Amino acid sequence: MSAIRPDYSRPLDFKGGRVEMSHGAGGRAMAQLINELFAKAFDNPYLAQGNDGALLPPASGRLVMSTDSHVVSPLFFAGGDIGCLSVHGTINDVAMMGAAPLYLSAAFILEEGFRLSELKRIVESMARAAKDAGVFIVTGDTKVVEKGKGDGVFITTTAVGVIRDGITLSGDLAQAGDKILLSGSIGDHGMAVLSQRENMTFDAPITSDTAALHTLVAAMLDSGAKLRVLRDPTRGGLATTLNEIAKQSGAGMMLQESSIRVNGPVDAACEFLGLDPLYVANEGKLVAICAPEDADRLLEVMRAHPLGRESAVIGEVREDAHGFVQMITRLGGRRIVDWLAGEQLPRIC
Amino acid sequence: MSAIRPDYSRPLDFKGGRVEMSHGAGGRAMAQLINELFAKAFDNPYLAQGNDGALLPPASGRLVMSTDSHVVSPLFFAGGDIGCLSVHGTINDVAMMGAAPLYLSAAFILEEGFRLSELKRIVESMARAAKDAGVFIVTGDTKVVEKGKGDGVFITTTAVGVIRDGITLSGDLAQAGDKILLSGSIGDHGMAVLSQRENMTFDAPITSDTAALHTLVAAMLDSGAKLRVLRDPTRGGLATTLNEIAKQSGAGMMLQESSIRVNGPVDAACEFLGLDPLYVANEGKLVAICAPEDADRLLEVMRAHPLGRESAVIGEVREDAHGFVQMITRLGGRRIVDWLAGEQLPRIC
Repeated sequence: MSAIRPDYSRPLDFKGGRVEMSHGAGGRAMAQLINELFAKAFDNPYLAQGNDGALLPPASGRLVMSTDSHVVSPLFFAGGDIGCLSVHGTINDVAMMGAAPLYLSAAFILEEGFRLSELKRIVESMARAAKDAGVFIVTGDTKVVEKGKGDGVFITTTAVGVIRDGITLSGDLAQAGDKILLSGSIGDHGMAVLSQRENMTFDAPITSDTAALHTLVAAMLDSGAKLRVLRDPTRGGLATTLNEIAKQSGAGMMLQESSIRVNGPVDAACEFLGLDPLYVANEGKLVAICAPEDADRLLEVMRAHPLGRESAVIGEVREDAHGFVQMITRLGGRRIVDWLAGEQLPRIC
Repeated sequence: MSAIRPDYSRPLDFKGGRVEMSHGAGGRAMAQLINELFAKAFDNPYLAQGNDGALLPPASGRLVMSTDSHVVSPLFFAGGDIGCLSVHGTINDVAMMGAAPLYLSAAFILEEGFRLSELKRIVESMARAAKDAGVFIVTGDTKVVEKGKGDGVFITTTAVGVIRDGITLSGDLAQAGDKILLSGSIGDHGMAVLSQRENMTFDAPITSDTAALHTLVAAMLDSGAKLRVLRDPTRGGLATTLNEIAKQSGAGMMLQESSIRVNGPVDAACEFLGLDPLYVANEGKLVAICAPEDADRLLEVMRAHPLGRESAVIGEVREDAHGFVQMITRLGGRRIVDWLAGEQLPRIC
C-alpha cells in the first residue's frame, strides 16, 4: 500500500460507487483507492513512506506477533462493525501476551460490486479504533475478487507489540490454587452479531462488547500481581478458552456459575435459540489467572478500569490430570464444561 | 493458532475430506485442523507456544513490516501455487526495504467444501518455502466461510524483518543519472497463471518465477554499491513499478527495450492475448536503482546469484519534473510507458 499519487481524472464516488476488479489490479485505480481512502483514513508517517513495507524504529524488548482474519457476517452490528473489530481483535491477542501493541498491518479482500460507501464506513471505523488505541496501521494490501467469490470485505490484521522484561504469561502456567478472574459479562458480541444476522429484535438491545483491552492489561501488569495467564474468550467463548488453558497447563478448573455474569437480554436470546452463553464469543473481555494471594488486589485494579468494572473471581484452578473444567451450577449441582464439539456460531468474528 | 491437543475420535481425512464450517468455529474441529495440519507442517518453537500470539526474541535494528493477501486463481500453476507464493511475496516486500525477513504470520480464509487434500498440498508448499527461506511461520489464524462466499482458500501473510544500520532504501531516492537494473526476464509469473487459468498450452511451457529474493538482496547490500531503491515488479508489472518510483522520486526514466528480457513463450503468449509484458506480474524479479559508478559492480554481484543470472542494466533515471517513464524501442523509436489504466490481469497473486 503506497501513497504515490498518479493523476486521476475524477475522485472516487463514495456515494454511489462500487468496488471494481481494477481496484485490485495494481494500476491507477488501485492507487486511487489507496490514496483517497486508506492513506487518508489511516494517515501516519509510516504508511506515508509509500514503499512495499513500513520501516519502523528499533523496538526494545521481546516482540509479540499475532494475526487474525475477520469474516464476520453481517459487516455491521450493534456496537461495532468488521472495521473496529479487526483492530480490537488483533490488539487483544497481543495484549493477552502481556505486550504493548505498537503496529498493525491491514489486508483487505474486497468483493467486486461492494459499495464504496460501506467500505469507507468500515475503513473509518478501523481508523478510529486504531487512533483510540494509540496504534498505527503502518502497511496494508488490497485485493479484489469477482462477485460471488467473496462476501463484501474480509480484513486480515496483524499486530506487532513489545513485551517488557520480567513478564511471562502463557497458557501453560496455571497452577492448582490459582484464582480465575473474568473482566465482565459473557456472550454480548456473539449474540449481537447473531441477532443482527437473524433480524431478531429484543426489548433491550444486545450490543457487542468489542473493545481494545491493552490499557486494562497494562494496569493489571502494573499492579504487580503474579499473573500467570491472560486470554480473551473469543470464538468458542469462555468454555473453550478455559479448556485450552486447562489442557495446556495440565490442570483442572472449578467454576461458580453464580459468579459468571450474563446480561439479561443475552441470557434470554441464548435460551430462545438453545445456545449456551459459555460458548458464545466475546470481543472485549479477558480471563486472568493469578496467584491466589494476589486475586483481591488484581480484582480491585480491574474494577477500577472502565472495561473491567464488572470483573469477578469466577473460580479456581484445581489439580486434575484429565484437565476437566467443571462448574458448580446455580442450583448447587456440578457439570462438566466440555470443549465445543462442532459448529456453534460461524462467522462471528 | 494454538497447538493445544484435545482428544479426537479419529484423524482428519486428508484424502476425501473437505473443509467444514466447524473448522473455523473455535472448538474441537478447529483445534484438530490446526494440530494435524498447520502445526505439523510449520513446526517451530514459536508456533508451538500455543498462545494467542507468538513471543519472539528482541530484534536488534529497525523493524520492517509488510502484508499481502493472496487470492491467486487458479490455486495451482506451473512453477508454484498459492502456498509458496504467499511466502515468497511477503518475504520479498520486506527484502525490498533492505531488511532480513525473520518471521511470518499466516491467516487462512477457507471456503466450506474445499478439499482437505488440496489444503494440505498448499500448506506443505508454504512450509517448504518458509524452510527454504530460513523464515519461521510463527502464528496464524483459520476462518471458514460458507460455500459460495469465498473461493477455495485465501492466504494473508505478514512478514517482520530487521534492517541493519546504514541501509536506507526508498522509492523516493532515485536521482538523475542513476542506473536501473533488472534481475531477469519479465512476465513469467503472470503468464504462467493466466495460461493455466485459460487452459492455454504452448509448445514451450511457461513457468512462474516465484522465488524468495532476500538472499539476492543480501548479496547486493554486501557489495557496498550505493543502492537507492529496490522494488519487486509484481501486480502491474515492471511498467507500474517504475512509474511508482518515478512519481515518488520526482524524476523520469529512459529505458532500453532491447535490454529488457522477455522469454520466448511469454512473448508469444502476450502477443496472442494482446498483452504487454511490461504490465505483467513477476514474483521472483527485482528492480534496483543505484549510483551510476556502482552499476557494473552491482551487476556482477547480481549475475553471480542463482536468481540474478540474467540481470541487466535496462535504463537510467533522468531529470523530468513530469516523472515520465520512456522507452527507446527495438526499432529506435520512443514511447511513453504509462501507468496501467484499468484492469489487466485480475487475481494474479
